[in-house]
Amino acid sequence: MKKDFFNSTSLIEYSKETHSCDPITSLEQIDFNSDSKKIKWLNTYGTHHKNEFKSIITQSLLDDFLLKLISEEKHPNKVLELDNVLFVTIKVLKTETINFQTEQMFFILTPHILWSIQEQKGDYFEWIRERIRENKGIVRNKKTDYLLFLILESIIDNYEEAYENISSSMETLIQGSDVKPTPDFTQNIEKEKNTIITFKKAVTSLRDIITKLEKVEQQKINKKFYSELSTQIHNILNTIDFDLQEMESKINLIFSIQGHRLNEVMKTLTIFSVIFIPLTFLAGIYGMNFEYIPELKHHNGYFILLGAMIIITLVSVYYFRKKKWF
Amino acid sequence: MKKDFFNSTSLIEYSKETHSCDPITSLEQIDFNSDSKKIKWLNTYGTHHKNEFKSIITQSLLDDFLLKLISEEKHPNKVLELDNVLFVTIKVLKTETINFQTEQMFFILTPHILWSIQEQKGDYFEWIRERIRENKGIVRNKKTDYLLFLILESIIDNYEEAYENISSSMETLIQGSDVKPTPDFTQNIEKEKNTIITFKKAVTSLRDIITKLEKVEQQKINKKFYSELSTQIHNILNTIDFDLQEMESKINLIFSIQGHRLNEVMKTLTIFSVIFIPLTFLAGIYGMNFEYIPELKHHNGYFILLGAMIIITLVSVYYFRKKKWF
Amino acid sequence: MKKDFFNSTSLIEYSKETHSCDPITSLEQIDFNSDSKKIKWLNTYGTHHKNEFKSIITQSLLDDFLLKLISEEKHPNKVLELDNVLFVTIKVLKTETINFQTEQMFFILTPHILWSIQEQKGDYFEWIRERIRENKGIVRNKKTDYLLFLILESIIDNYEEAYENISSSMETLIQGSDVKPTPDFTQNIEKEKNTIITFKKAVTSLRDIITKLEKVEQQKINKKFYSELSTQIHNILNTIDFDLQEMESKINLIFSIQGHRLNEVMKTLTIFSVIFIPLTFLAGIYGMNFEYIPELKHHNGYFILLGAMIIITLVSVYYFRKKKWF
Amino acid sequence: MKKDFFNSTSLIEYSKETHSCDPITSLEQIDFNSDSKKIKWLNTYGTHHKNEFKSIITQSLLDDFLLKLISEEKHPNKVLELDNVLFVTIKVLKTETINFQTEQMFFILTPHILWSIQEQKGDYFEWIRERIRENKGIVRNKKTDYLLFLILESIIDNYEEAYENISSSMETLIQGSDVKPTPDFTQNIEKEKNTIITFKKAVTSLRDIITKLEKVEQQKINKKFYSELSTQIHNILNTIDFDLQEMESKINLIFSIQGHRLNEVMKTLTIFSVIFIPLTFLAGIYGMNFEYIPELKHHNGYFILLGAMIIITLVSVYYFRKKKWF
Amino acid sequence: MKKDFFNSTSLIEYSKETHSCDPITSLEQIDFNSDSKKIKWLNTYGTHHKNEFKSIITQSLLDDFLLKLISEEKHPNKVLELDNVLFVTIKVLKTETINFQTEQMFFILTPHILWSIQEQKGDYFEWIRERIRENKGIVRNKKTDYLLFLILESIIDNYEEAYENISSSMETLIQGSDVKPTPDFTQNIEKEKNTIITFKKAVTSLRDIITKLEKVEQQKINKKFYSELSTQIHNILNTIDFDLQEMESKINLIFSIQGHRLNEVMKTLTIFSVIFIPLTFLAGIYGMNFEYIPELKHHNGYFILLGAMIIITLVSVYYFRKKKWF
Ligand SMILES: [Mg+2]
Ligand SMILES: [Mg+2]
Ligand SMILES: [Mg+2]
Ligand SMILES: [Mg+2]
Ligand SMILES: [Mg+2]
Ligand SMILES: [Mg+2]
Ligand SMILES: [Mg+2]
Ligand SMILES: [Mg+2]
Ligand SMILES: [Mg+2]
Ligand SMILES: [Mg+2]
Ligand SMILES: [Mg+2]
Ligand SMILES: [Mg+2]
Ligand SMILES: [Mg+2]
Ligand SMILES: [Mg+2]
Ligand SMILES: [Mg+2]
Ligand SMILES: [Mg+2]
Ligand SMILES: [Mg+2]
Ligand SMILES: [Mg+2]
Ligand SMILES: [Mg+2]
Ligand SMILES: [Mg+2]
Ligand SMILES: [Mg+2]
Ligand SMILES: [Mg+2]
Ligand SMILES: [Mg+2]
Ligand SMILES: [Mg+2]
Ligand SMILES: [Mg+2]
Ligand SMILES: [Mg+2]
Ligand SMILES: [Mg+2]
Ligand SMILES: [Mg+2]
Ligand SMILES: [Mg+2]
Ligand SMILES: [Mg+2]
Ligand SMILES: [Mg+2]
Repeated sequence: MKKDFFNSTSLIEYSKETHSCDPITSLEQIDFNSDSKKIKWLNTYGTHHKNEFKSIITQSLLDDFLLKLISEEKHPNKVLELDNVLFVTIKVLKTETINFQTEQMFFILTPHILWSIQEQKGDYFEWIRERIRENKGIVRNKKTDYLLFLILESIIDNYEEAYENISSSMETLIQGSDVKPTPDFTQNIEKEKNTIITFKKAVTSLRDIITKLEKVEQQKINKKFYSELSTQIHNILNTIDFDLQEMESKINLIFSIQGHRLNEVMKTLTIFSVIFIPLTFLAGIYGMNFEYIPELKHHNGYFILLGAMIIITLVSVYYFRKKKWF
Repeated sequence: MKKDFFNSTSLIEYSKETHSCDPITSLEQIDFNSDSKKIKWLNTYGTHHKNEFKSIITQSLLDDFLLKLISEEKHPNKVLELDNVLFVTIKVLKTETINFQTEQMFFILTPHILWSIQEQKGDYFEWIRERIRENKGIVRNKKTDYLLFLILESIIDNYEEAYENISSSMETLIQGSDVKPTPDFTQNIEKEKNTIITFKKAVTSLRDIITKLEKVEQQKINKKFYSELSTQIHNILNTIDFDLQEMESKINLIFSIQGHRLNEVMKTLTIFSVIFIPLTFLAGIYGMNFEYIPELKHHNGYFILLGAMIIITLVSVYYFRKKKWF
Repeated sequence: MKKDFFNSTSLIEYSKETHSCDPITSLEQIDFNSDSKKIKWLNTYGTHHKNEFKSIITQSLLDDFLLKLISEEKHPNKVLELDNVLFVTIKVLKTETINFQTEQMFFILTPHILWSIQEQKGDYFEWIRERIRENKGIVRNKKTDYLLFLILESIIDNYEEAYENISSSMETLIQGSDVKPTPDFTQNIEKEKNTIITFKKAVTSLRDIITKLEKVEQQKINKKFYSELSTQIHNILNTIDFDLQEMESKINLIFSIQGHRLNEVMKTLTIFSVIFIPLTFLAGIYGMNFEYIPELKHHNGYFILLGAMIIITLVSVYYFRKKKWF
Repeated sequence: MKKDFFNSTSLIEYSKETHSCDPITSLEQIDFNSDSKKIKWLNTYGTHHKNEFKSIITQSLLDDFLLKLISEEKHPNKVLELDNVLFVTIKVLKTETINFQTEQMFFILTPHILWSIQEQKGDYFEWIRERIRENKGIVRNKKTDYLLFLILESIIDNYEEAYENISSSMETLIQGSDVKPTPDFTQNIEKEKNTIITFKKAVTSLRDIITKLEKVEQQKINKKFYSELSTQIHNILNTIDFDLQEMESKINLIFSIQGHRLNEVMKTLTIFSVIFIPLTFLAGIYGMNFEYIPELKHHNGYFILLGAMIIITLVSVYYFRKKKWF
Repeated sequence: MKKDFFNSTSLIEYSKETHSCDPITSLEQIDFNSDSKKIKWLNTYGTHHKNEFKSIITQSLLDDFLLKLISEEKHPNKVLELDNVLFVTIKVLKTETINFQTEQMFFILTPHILWSIQEQKGDYFEWIRERIRENKGIVRNKKTDYLLFLILESIIDNYEEAYENISSSMETLIQGSDVKPTPDFTQNIEKEKNTIITFKKAVTSLRDIITKLEKVEQQKINKKFYSELSTQIHNILNTIDFDLQEMESKINLIFSIQGHRLNEVMKTLTIFSVIFIPLTFLAGIYGMNFEYIPELKHHNGYFILLGAMIIITLVSVYYFRKKKWF
């Protein structure tokens, strides 16, 4: 069991000048109270190593409330300021999956150690490890708050890209062809809307994390990093809200088109009926078999009736024209 | 009367090292001012023991405003910071009942004593008593704020499970079959929506309690515990809001389908009518009994008319095709 | 004039041990600066005694801005922190009247004197006077802030009861019979909604008062009393919002039922028309009087035609069945 | 130019004991730094005296940012706390005009001088000048903050009266006759709604001013005056919101009535059609000219058919009755 | 590369008394730490000079987080308070383009230096340079916070003018002709709405910047300037919201007109049908060929039937009149 934990855990140590990445062989290597000025990034894949987690927490004298937190199954996004440590957990949307599965990640942060625990193997953080290794950018000049900032930025960047895909599929749906007032089209719009809302839920929840991190006072967290993330994530949320409003417009449009079409259909029926109903009635009258119907005997009766019918038709047409029905 | 109170009341005392659970035999045992460093959990079933409540409050020199509070019949959820005591009352949704009946619970909290008063016998807190008895987890290291945290967490967990049931019954309703634009279906959706809103009301009200507890400064309440509850309950609320929006979508869809069906029905009627109305009129014309209708004498009159009718039909069909009615 | 004022004014004085209720005979009796530790409750019926009000304010050296406030006709709800006095005015909804008439009440509060001025004779506060007289509860141990709390609680309790009536009449409207999609029913719903909104307006406005009182820092106002009122009034507001949402649901349902009924009606018409239109046309054809229509001569022509008509009918019925129209 | 400015400007000086109102003859008379304990109210009609404004600002050493502000053409409502002066500008709705024209007003305030600049001659403030002149009320005991309070109160009172007119014209529209589901009626409602919203915009904007004035800490502004204005203006806003909601209800009602009428119309058509269509078809059958139709020969054929038709009619009527169509 | 940077960069230096505008020839000229009391405005066209940017940041010992910020491609609007510098980036809407393209601008601000970096050549700021050159207004008395204020004011003024154009095109759409309930008209309204919402998004985002600048405490930023901008931008936002509500009204009106027209159409059809259907049926009855139909033999049968038909018609007309159908 312990061996499995050692295999799933890596430790990166760095300072302005040095960098090392040694395998873990004993729990004693992981000491949150060491005096070393080096920054340590401890990463564990798998959230099931409860025993090792407990050993580390107890041995490093971290807040014992971590014991309760770490032993629970499901977590929504959280930032908790504990006694000597900051606890962050995020349900990361796996944007590459179809139904937006999620991966739970934990971050336990002291000024010199960041311990990240991920539910599943593999992550988007390789570029950060590279920057540390090759001393790119300013990461080696900064503390763990900057490291957490880079990790969160990776997640947000990933969301941003994922939303661009969703958004462009929405564009195709809406603008590729004209808006059609069919249930299918409406259903597609509503489905797309639900996808966007699921996504918005995850982003909003992540924004709440960032907002809380901006307000953390303990732990020498540098506000400016999280202020930067905050603007990024607000930007995504604004785009989402804008798209949602655009969809609302489309739905309104669908109802309006339906109403218009119905009007057109009914006008057609009504005009036709109103013109022919009296004519057909007249024809019925003179199709009756009464013995004595004087008009029938009249030599030009038929032609007089046809003339009357034409006049009735013209009057009807004039009436509808005046009412601007066509 | 007093005997009834003693039977309904239990007292658990514990510290890091010790644990006891003795029966109550006199009111003097309940002393909020005792110097003992042990934590006491006093639990009473039944809110009608007004006399005993008053004796205890007066004898322990607790804030006399408690006297007024405790003598009232109905309470919404409340957190009140009194002079030397914190007063919390919650109307707990009994999620196992069909119409969401509620049970009133009171919590009177000082740093070393938590007094819980429940309207009805039985509760979801047995697991907490077990953890205290068997020294599981960290409960015996903590004070009454942690104990109240565990109690509130039980309630929230229960809500969470209950909402999962509601939510899955909603899923069945919406996705089990296609959306049907009938009043029955709409009514079911609206009923389900009302259930969810009732539930949301209870959860929102509990969230307000938690938010207030997070802000309590007196009483050495540890903020981190309630911050943890706060994230849990926000998570439920977000899920509820998401489900409500999904239902809104379905209702929009229903209206859209209704509109579409009406269009289909009316188009069918109109097309049929517009095609046959002139034909029937023509048949009526030549069914008239005028003595002199020259066409009737024509040998091929009937076949010429049938031909004319076919042409009229084709023109109508062409017209509707061009208008994309079918 | 002065005599009228003395008749309309009563003064209750009390402390933990004593209680008196003497008639007022001179303005000098009313001294806001007296050293006495007794609590005084001065109550005046009638807001027209402007001269006496001015005398008292000037003589007691109260903030002269009160002069301006007291001389105005109409007041919305207000809490004003003046120099040495707290000024509260409430437009109390007279819930026993049909159209929710209002009664203006003023409260002028210093730590030892509460002066209540009511527009109309009679009030809901007799039970408070009784509690003071008979030393029930804790009122005689507390100062004027508790007295004002009891008065406001009376008003809120009265609102609560009134809303229960409104709410149950709404229930009867909605659930007594099924929802009917008639304009009458809609109009009743909308009327009921307006009543609820009027009520909500008054409650919201009172809540704003309570919220302001919670924040008053001057005057030794005890926050916990108003915190208690705040939870009560929030509870009413939540219930109102819930009921409003339920009504919104009903209105949606009405529209849905209307749409469904229209669909049913039109389907009936269309099915009937589509089945009979071709049959009637055929009958019309063979009712024509052309000299030469070969089918008419055929011995079984009539029966063949009837057979054809049955086939056409069956095809139509099959078509509608397949389209699930019935 | 200067003469024009002197003619358009008046200066009122007052203290508890004295009052004077002298014509302005030189810019030196206007000294914001004078030691005099008297309160000065300087009023200028016309915003085009830019040169004189600049002279006064420079000479009195007021914040030079005023130079920029005063040289601009259009201003939304503003409260700016400058270095030694408070700058307030309001676009006052001229409620006596039909389309709500506006008049720009500037107020430059130090503890002892209030300088009001109005775009147009004439104002609602004559009653304030009278109160100062005749020492009515408490204005002569107070400083410039009270003077500005009285001016703002005049504006708010004027809005209140104007809104009462708008509101009562709305009442007439809605309740004078029944709600009619015609486009004209809807258009009137929407027009009225737009008027109310324009008005709300002005009131909301004024409220923002008041809220800012409540928060001003510099300048010895007395919070209580603006707190009083704040309750007044909130009251107007609440009434507006209530009226808007009532209109929303009416619009919902219109849609509901439209839907109901359509249902009635279509039911009438359908019932008539469904009853007569089969009867007319039968008449058509026996109007055919086939040589051999046995029923036609039957002596009582006609009466048997009439009997059958009556039965068919009764069945149809029974069917619609059972479906509760009428 | 460096030469390109020098060509794209200009440096304006000024104080109360002096003003100079020299070409840049070496990076050493740009020193954020110089002791000179003069204000410097450094402007660079082009955001691709990453190397030079890095040199300047490193050499001037500015916060190294700027390195990360400046190296990124896309930025939403941001205000970041860094260690010794304020970083502002704005995506300026290019209102002269049709689809609202944007131009990224960066502002790096210390009390004595403002460095503006613009994505594209040319700007709206020439009038500011003129005011500095010719010592107009108060710009030469103020620091860089006033300079940034002038720049932001240019951008807001530009937005204001742009919105006036959008708004007047909307007016034309809505009021130029009557509201027409066609899908085209609805689509135009929805398009216009989307344009306004895009614009609102940009303005809201700029407002967030201004709000943050108002709250900046570091850097000796003078709050009053940004308070002035804040009122300006709130004014635009209020106008936008008002226009959006007006559009919402129009859309409601469209639906109402559609509903009304449909009612008119259906009433016409129904009245015509209901009047003629029984008449035509009667004509059909007496057109039947039964051998024995006694009425047919009656000498005045035809005229009696016509009389009966007139009576039936009158009854129908009376019925519809009573129901107020026309
Ligand atoms: Mg959100
Ligand atoms: Mg949002
Ligand atoms: Mg947003
Ligand atoms: Mg939205
Ligand atoms: Mg919606
Ligand atoms: Mg809508
Ligand atoms: Mg709608
Ligand atoms: Mg809520
Ligand atoms: Mg929520
Ligand atoms: Mg939410
Ligand atoms: Mg919600
Ligand atoms: Mg929702
Ligand atoms: Mg909706
Ligand atoms: Mg409200
Ligand atoms: Mg509310
Ligand atoms: Mg509420
Ligand atoms: Mg609602
Ligand atoms: Mg609504
Ligand atoms: Mg709706
Ligand atoms: Mg408002
Ligand atoms: Mg309001
Ligand atoms: Mg509002
Ligand atoms: Mg509203
Ligand atoms: Mg609406
Ligand atoms: Mg609506
Ligand atoms: Mg926005
Ligand atoms: Mg806005
Ligand atoms: Mg706004
Ligand atoms: Mg507004
Ligand atoms: Mg709006
Ligand atoms: Mg909308």
